[in-house]
Amino acid sequence: MTANEPAPTDASSARDTYGVAQRRSDALWEKIAKDPSGLRMLTGDRPTGALHIGHYFGSLRNRVRLQDAGVESWVLVADYQVITDREVIGDIQGSVRELLTDYLAVGIDPDRATIFTHSAVPALNQLLLPFLSLVTQPELERNPTVKAELAAAGKSAMGGLMLTYPVHQAADILFCHGNLVPVGKDQLPHIEQTRVIARRFNERYAGGEEYFPEPDALLSEAPTILGLDGGHKMSKSLGNTVMLRMSADETAKKIRKAKTDSERTITFDPEGRPEVANLLTIAGLCTGRAPEEIAAEIGDAGSGTLKVMTAEVLNDHLAPIRARRAELEKDPGYLLSVLRAGNERANAVADETLAHVREVMGMVY
Amino acid sequence: MTANEPAPTDASSARDTYGVAQRRSDALWEKIAKDPSGLRMLTGDRPTGALHIGHYFGSLRNRVRLQDAGVESWVLVADYQVITDREVIGDIQGSVRELLTDYLAVGIDPDRATIFTHSAVPALNQLLLPFLSLVTQPELERNPTVKAELAAAGKSAMGGLMLTYPVHQAADILFCHGNLVPVGKDQLPHIEQTRVIARRFNERYAGGEEYFPEPDALLSEAPTILGLDGGHKMSKSLGNTVMLRMSADETAKKIRKAKTDSERTITFDPEGRPEVANLLTIAGLCTGRAPEEIAAEIGDAGSGTLKVMTAEVLNDHLAPIRARRAELEKDPGYLLSVLRAGNERANAVADETLAHVREVMGMVY
Repeated sequence: MTANEPAPTDASSARDTYGVAQRRSDALWEKIAKDPSGLRMLTGDRPTGALHIGHYFGSLRNRVRLQDAGVESWVLVADYQVITDREVIGDIQGSVRELLTDYLAVGIDPDRATIFTHSAVPALNQLLLPFLSLVTQPELERNPTVKAELAAAGKSAMGGLMLTYPVHQAADILFCHGNLVPVGKDQLPHIEQTRVIARRFNERYAGGEEYFPEPDALLSEAPTILGLDGGHKMSKSLGNTVMLRMSADETAKKIRKAKTDSERTITFDPEGRPEVANLLTIAGLCTGRAPEEIAAEIGDAGSGTLKVMTAEVLNDHLAPIRARRAELEKDPGYLLSVLRAGNERANAVADETLAHVREVMGMVY
Repeated sequence: MTANEPAPTDASSARDTYGVAQRRSDALWEKIAKDPSGLRMLTGDRPTGALHIGHYFGSLRNRVRLQDAGVESWVLVADYQVITDREVIGDIQGSVRELLTDYLAVGIDPDRATIFTHSAVPALNQLLLPFLSLVTQPELERNPTVKAELAAAGKSAMGGLMLTYPVHQAADILFCHGNLVPVGKDQLPHIEQTRVIARRFNERYAGGEEYFPEPDALLSEAPTILGLDGGHKMSKSLGNTVMLRMSADETAKKIRKAKTDSERTITFDPEGRPEVANLLTIAGLCTGRAPEEIAAEIGDAGSGTLKVMTAEVLNDHLAPIRARRAELEKDPGYLLSVLRAGNERANAVADETLAHVREVMGMVY
């Protein structure tokens, strides 16, 4: 769901789920093209700082397209997820502000999308309680993302919030009756957990009425952008990224220093030449051209030319985003007002949902 | 904390904790006698129906005494705890109404005590999120009550709400800055869990400031009332109880059918003659006399006389409570208004606490 989650390991039992999810996702894309009414999308990110082009090409751009296609959009700043795997919160206000700036700069439109922080929506968080009653500890432990995260953090013991965050994520999705969640296939277990919770809630507490929708994953074809150092993933902390907020000069410098290889002729070979292919992919995404075509064009001009060309088209592509970003940075009051309005809308919807949940559970006094 | 929780098994590591907790409890009793100002008590029950004399003598009467001694009182109707170990909620509204009726009948005074249902207080429930970040899965699993409950329920898998409910209980206690929780010593692990959460919150998120108090257990000397069938525990579902709401005739009939033994002479011997001792204990609690003295008085008159006498003093003792109960039952609107006022007070306090929690965690936007 979020753009900066660790990738879970694949399990063989997940493959059946994947086939079914892929078919539902295909049907969704068709519906979006024909008539997106009734679709409500939930997306979001952990606020751990400003975003980079990996987030942008992998997720943000797709969200904006869906928003522009008429899908109702809810964008979650998942601030409680920051403390699932770290003890120090850091400057979370600053991180939220950076994230908001990036969101609005790339084209998330606060008039059409509700941007909110879940810590500001108590009724959403309360849903964690009834939802926890619908899952077992072994189910929580089986979640591959949770398992991978524990391994990645090198911790001796799983934290309580890490263990339960897929249930909290179900609350994030279901409080607004979200029925569409754009994810990579590695995040399908999360969506499956939410579907199970929705189904069990409807069966156990709502007398079989379909009160909560079982949300569908919307699988996209967005390629993964590797780190510029040849690493598996772009990550701000590794310094192998181009941040959306960077200047054109900084961007050119970053790309110039990107790892390539010693072969002179440029070819698009993601398996054999991942670093060169990565730059071609970025250039392709910026221009709408096929990476193979760009490779052929550069040919013997080599990686120096590839880098200059990639930096240029990337800077061209990001220029209007960066211009909006610079404007937005001048007006932190506006950014806050956007978030406050979003939180207000989210609270109104969450209050209504919680009132219904209390009603179907008979907890009305 | 609640009057109808299962008793956890004792662990040897718990014995040190017990010694320290006992000394803190002794100091608390002294403070209550001298000057109860600044003490805030959190007590409560799962709303699973009307209460019986086991609840009354084991817990309720003590709460009323503390309230009357001037300890600020918060009384939680823990409705989400109903679904920790069962899939069917049942008539929770009815159960809450019965509980409220019992509370007011025994003397909990809504002008001095805040009676509330936690499902009605979203900001309280939100505290579960930051609190979950402060505990590990092994700590959750180690809780003896949680372990005992899983065993008792004969379930193959622990539910997510059962696993995490000691953390939710910390939210119940800390949202109102409760610093005094009357419990039996078997419930000390819960209080210890809350103390750990308060301490870690203060260290990790509040920069060492003592924002949340570490609550003390107030250990009481209240004896355990056995089931009238000789069973270990009074339980409505076993039919071995005297309910507060019963008529005097029903009460006399229940006591008449109580299991005793074949020895004619009545003696107070809790180990050797638990059923007879149990009736003597009840009679002693109703009259303020020592059970041994009552036993000597009855002597050779046998268990028939003991039963008549016990039923009589129990009915005398409960008469004013039952009279109030009958009045209260005629006015469900009043009962609801008491709960609504309590929920309103609880929400005001929880909103304030959550606002502070967000502030110290830097989640203010």
